[in-house]
Amino acid sequence: MSRAPQAFSAELQRLIELLAKVPGLGPRSARRAALGLIKRKESLMLPLGEAIAAAASRVRKCSVCGNLDTSDLCSICADPSRDRRTICVVEEVSDVWALERARVYGGLYHVLGGVLSAIDGVGPDDLFIAPLLDRVRAGAAEVILATNATVDGQATAHYVGDRLEGTGVKITRLAYGVPVGGELDYLDEGTLKAALQSRRPI
Amino acid sequence: MSRAPQAFSAELQRLIELLAKVPGLGPRSARRAALGLIKRKESLMLPLGEAIAAAASRVRKCSVCGNLDTSDLCSICADPSRDRRTICVVEEVSDVWALERARVYGGLYHVLGGVLSAIDGVGPDDLFIAPLLDRVRAGAAEVILATNATVDGQATAHYVGDRLEGTGVKITRLAYGVPVGGELDYLDEGTLKAALQSRRPI
Repeated sequence: MSRAPQAFSAELQRLIELLAKVPGLGPRSARRAALGLIKRKESLMLPLGEAIAAAASRVRKCSVCGNLDTSDLCSICADPSRDRRTICVVEEVSDVWALERARVYGGLYHVLGGVLSAIDGVGPDDLFIAPLLDRVRAGAAEVILATNATVDGQATAHYVGDRLEGTGVKITRLAYGVPVGGELDYLDEGTLKAALQSRRPI
Repeated sequence: MSRAPQAFSAELQRLIELLAKVPGLGPRSARRAALGLIKRKESLMLPLGEAIAAAASRVRKCSVCGNLDTSDLCSICADPSRDRRTICVVEEVSDVWALERARVYGGLYHVLGGVLSAIDGVGPDDLFIAPLLDRVRAGAAEVILATNATVDGQATAHYVGDRLEGTGVKITRLAYGVPVGGELDYLDEGTLKAALQSRRPI
């Protein structure tokens, strides 16, 4: 009674394969996700397909800070009420979101797009570092190095701090309220606020 | 320095909200998934949007067995090499997939689309039961009740078995190789095979 599995149509097979590549899903959860989508075709599946296409075509990286938005100058960079002389340097856009959710920071951001990593072959030219130097030279009072408290994150902060030396900008880092080994996106708002308030010069 | 979070564009906000409703994802993992998609726009995000739209428009429920496929008679029902006199009754399409992956069954299926549940208000008319009776009356030698070994699954199997009484069809259930409380989709192929081989009359 053995036979090749052919229960999936080509469309389902492809949908499941692509869902399995989405961060947070794997092969089994992708199958469940596909079935869940098909069960809610009108209320979830069709809107999600449209939302993905809309975001893919309209969301872009801000050329100034690396944040994601639909306008080239992102809504944070374009907001006249924000403190334009303070730049918070983070690894990823998710870190911007974490700090914005906490509502404890009113300056601008700079998203590096990752960390230096010899193992993964990520060097300074692979990160959004050169534009940061241009921004600082164009005028900034303080740069807050808010990379994750991991080995790679701290090494990256060190490197960025070294590159900023001589510009005269005040360089700070988040206080060690951040648990060592932890990641910004997983912290509660209170910890983020405490770490921001007790930031100090490097 | 407190302010409303406005780091998401409307497109990103909507994408994240919809991703959070996908089975297996939640609010936090939806944010990570959205970022992961945008980072792989060409290789993952655009193809996934297209795959969702294609599956949503082309995948439908087989009118005979309830399986999902692009043709109304699904590929399993349409396969002339399968044993057409044996019908395996399962709760969900994912159970069809689990049995097909195990390659231990060569008959046809019947997907109920759920289980009877007083708490969730699911009655016999909400499941794909009446078409099963028609199929059995039209000619079937054996119905294998392969609902999950949960309380609701077994109650549903009981109910379906009662409804089939008098048709003269042989009614079997999977052997108790299935761990009590477990679900088909989570079993290894060996367990599924053992349970199928030692099935016995009710």
